[in-house]
Amino acid sequence: MTHKVLLLPGDGIGPEIAAQAARLLKACQDAGLDIDVEEALVGGAAYDAHGDPLPEETLDKAKAASAILLGAVGGPKWDKIEDLSKRPEKGLLGLRKNLGLFGNLRPAMLYPQLASASSLKPELVAGLDIMIVRELTGGIYFGQPRGIEERNGERVGFNTYVYSESEIERIGRVAFEMAQKRGKKLCSVDKANVLEVTILWREVMERLAPEYPDVELSHMYVDNAAMQLVRAPKQFDVVVTGNMFGDILSDAAAMLTGSIGMLPSASLNESGQGMYEPCHGSAPDIAGKNIANPLAMMLSVAMMLRYSLGENAMAERIEAAVGSVLDDGLRTADIASEGMQTIGTDAMGDAVLVAF
Amino acid sequence: MTHKVLLLPGDGIGPEIAAQAARLLKACQDAGLDIDVEEALVGGAAYDAHGDPLPEETLDKAKAASAILLGAVGGPKWDKIEDLSKRPEKGLLGLRKNLGLFGNLRPAMLYPQLASASSLKPELVAGLDIMIVRELTGGIYFGQPRGIEERNGERVGFNTYVYSESEIERIGRVAFEMAQKRGKKLCSVDKANVLEVTILWREVMERLAPEYPDVELSHMYVDNAAMQLVRAPKQFDVVVTGNMFGDILSDAAAMLTGSIGMLPSASLNESGQGMYEPCHGSAPDIAGKNIANPLAMMLSVAMMLRYSLGENAMAERIEAAVGSVLDDGLRTADIASEGMQTIGTDAMGDAVLVAF
Ligand SMILES: CC(C)[C@H](C(=O)O)[C@@H](O)C(=O)O
Ligand SMILES: CC(C)[C@H](C(=O)O)[C@@H](O)C(=O)O
Repeated sequence: MTHKVLLLPGDGIGPEIAAQAARLLKACQDAGLDIDVEEALVGGAAYDAHGDPLPEETLDKAKAASAILLGAVGGPKWDKIEDLSKRPEKGLLGLRKNLGLFGNLRPAMLYPQLASASSLKPELVAGLDIMIVRELTGGIYFGQPRGIEERNGERVGFNTYVYSESEIERIGRVAFEMAQKRGKKLCSVDKANVLEVTILWREVMERLAPEYPDVELSHMYVDNAAMQLVRAPKQFDVVVTGNMFGDILSDAAAMLTGSIGMLPSASLNESGQGMYEPCHGSAPDIAGKNIANPLAMMLSVAMMLRYSLGENAMAERIEAAVGSVLDDGLRTADIASEGMQTIGTDAMGDAVLVAF
Repeated sequence: MTHKVLLLPGDGIGPEIAAQAARLLKACQDAGLDIDVEEALVGGAAYDAHGDPLPEETLDKAKAASAILLGAVGGPKWDKIEDLSKRPEKGLLGLRKNLGLFGNLRPAMLYPQLASASSLKPELVAGLDIMIVRELTGGIYFGQPRGIEERNGERVGFNTYVYSESEIERIGRVAFEMAQKRGKKLCSVDKANVLEVTILWREVMERLAPEYPDVELSHMYVDNAAMQLVRAPKQFDVVVTGNMFGDILSDAAAMLTGSIGMLPSASLNESGQGMYEPCHGSAPDIAGKNIANPLAMMLSVAMMLRYSLGENAMAERIEAAVGSVLDDGLRTADIASEGMQTIGTDAMGDAVLVAF
C-alpha cells in the first residue's frame, strides 16, 4: 500500500528546510520506499494566501495522510493579527487538535560530534539522551473557558488549565511504554503542591505505575525540573508532563544540547498517524539566506519512517548519513566550530543525500 | 521608631539557617539597628503544632511586622496531606496573599568567587546579574474556579490562569522601575501566541512603556525564554512575568549561577512591607546535619534592610562580610570546590559574624 506523506513547509526557514526533506523523500522513493508526497500551505503562508492559517484543503489532506512533515510556522509578520484564531500558530494547534495528535515525543540528545556546542560543561552533557513526552492536545492550550472580557470596570484575561483522567492516562501510557523501551526511568513533572489539576495528574501516574513494574516512576515539581535540567540533565531518561510545562521544559532540554537545529520531534495519535517537525522554530531572522540547518527536518523524515511507516532500516540509513556528514566536519552556521567547514542549507542537504 | 521583624524558620533546613539569621540580626542590633525580633511557626512546623500551616497568630504577627524573614517550607513528611489548604506550601501562599506581597524580586547573580560552581561554561556566565520580577499574588496560583470534580463519568482537574489589567500594570511598574535603576532593559515573558491572558499581559506592558522612555522593553515567549536562559543568559537584565512562569524561570536562572544557596529574594506589597527568603527550598534531605548554606538567608537579611527598612549602609556591611568570607576560601558543601575549605552551617554563620 502506498503511504501518503503530506509536506507542510510553513513559514520562515520552513520552506528552505522542507525543500531538503523533499529531496530526501525523493531519494527514499528511488531506494524503493512506496510513498506519495503532496504539499500544502499552513501557518502564515496559508493566512497570506487564503486568510486562514489552516485551510480546509490542508486539513483534509492532513487527515488523509499517513504522516505529515511540518517545517515551522509563525513570524513577526503576523504578530499583529489580533484574532488568535487567525495567527499562524493556530495552523499548528489546529492540526494537533483535529488529528488528535496527543503524544508529543521530543528527544534531547547530544551528538558526540557536537559536544562542544552545548553551553554546559562537557562532562555534564556528554552522552545526554532525554526523551520528553509532552501531552499535546489538552491542558491550558485548549482549555475552556478562555478569553479577555470586562469585569468590574477593567479587562481581565483568562485561560483554563484542565485535564481529565482519561487524557492523563493516555499520555501516561505512552510515556511508560517509552520508558520500557529505554532506560526504564520515568519522571512525571507537575506542580502538585499548588495546582489541583496536577494533583490529579500525579494520582493517575501513580495508578498506572503497577502496570509497568519494570519502570521506576518519580515525580518532580516543574520549578525543580527546570533547575535539575540545568544542573544535572543526565539524571533524566523519560520525562512526562502536560502541554504547557512540556513546551517550556522540552525547549530548555533541547537547548542543553547546544544544537537545537539537530532535533526532530513526533506528534502521534491513537492510530499511529503522526506529524513530524524540527524542535526549532521558524527563525524568521535567518529565513531566505540559505544558512538554516536542515538536519532536524531531515531527521524528522527518519523519525516518520520509524514511528508512522514502520521503515526502520530506511530511518537508520538517514541517521547514519547525518552522522557521517558530521564526522566529515560539515556544519551549518548554528553548529559551526573551529576547524570545521561551515556550509549552507542546500550544501548540507547535498551532503546528506550523497551519504545516504 | 522600632521596626518589628518577624522570623519564620519553617521546615527542613529552615530552622538551621534561620538561627544564623537570628544571630546576624542580633549583631545588627548591637551595631545600632533599632529592631524588635519575634519568631512564629509556619508551614509543616505550624501544621504539626496547630493543624494549620498558617495559624492566625502567625498571620497577625506578620501583619504587624515591617518585614518578615522566612526560612523555607515543605517536605515529604507532609506530601500525603490530601487537602491542599493544609499543606505547608499553603502557609507561604497564604502569607503572600494576605499581605498582598505581589512583587517578587529574584536576583540571579554570580559571585565571582563561585564562578566555577555554574554548570555553564565560565564565559557564558561571568558577571551574570539578572533580576527576575515575578507577580506573586495572582495568576494560576490563585485563580478561581479550581478543583477536581466529576464530569461525564470521570474526574477532571482544573485551574484558572487569570490576570486583570490592574494586576498586570502594578507588577509592570515595579519591573520598569527596577529596570530604570539597573541596565534599563526589560524583557516581558508571556505565551501570547497561545494564551489570551498573556495577550492582555503583553498589551498592558506595551501601554506602560512610553512612561518609561529610558527603558527598552522587549517580549519573549516563555519557551524561548527558557532556551535563552540556557544559551546566553547575559542577554537579560530585568525579566518580568507572571506567577507560574516566574516560578519556573527564576529557579532555572538561579541554578545557572550554580550557587542557589547564595541567592536571597524579596516579596513586597504596595506599602513596602516585605517578606524575605532564600531562593532555595527546605532541602529536607540535608536538614539537621549542620551542612546547609546559611548565606542566602543571611543575604535575605541584607535585602530586608535595603528594601523594607531603608538601612542601606548596614545591608552593604552584610554583603561585604559575605564577600570577604568567600574571599577567605570558606565554603559550605553546596558550593565546595578544590582548594577551598568546606565548613558547616554554624561555622559559616560564625565567619560572617566575625567579618561583619
Ligand atoms: C508555535 C507554538 C504554538 C508551539 C507551542 O507552544 O506548542 C511551539 O512552541 C512548540 O513547542 O511546538
Ligand atoms: C513552595 C512553592 C509553593 C513556591 C512557589 O511555587 O511559589 C516555591 O516554589 C517558590 O518559588 O517560592
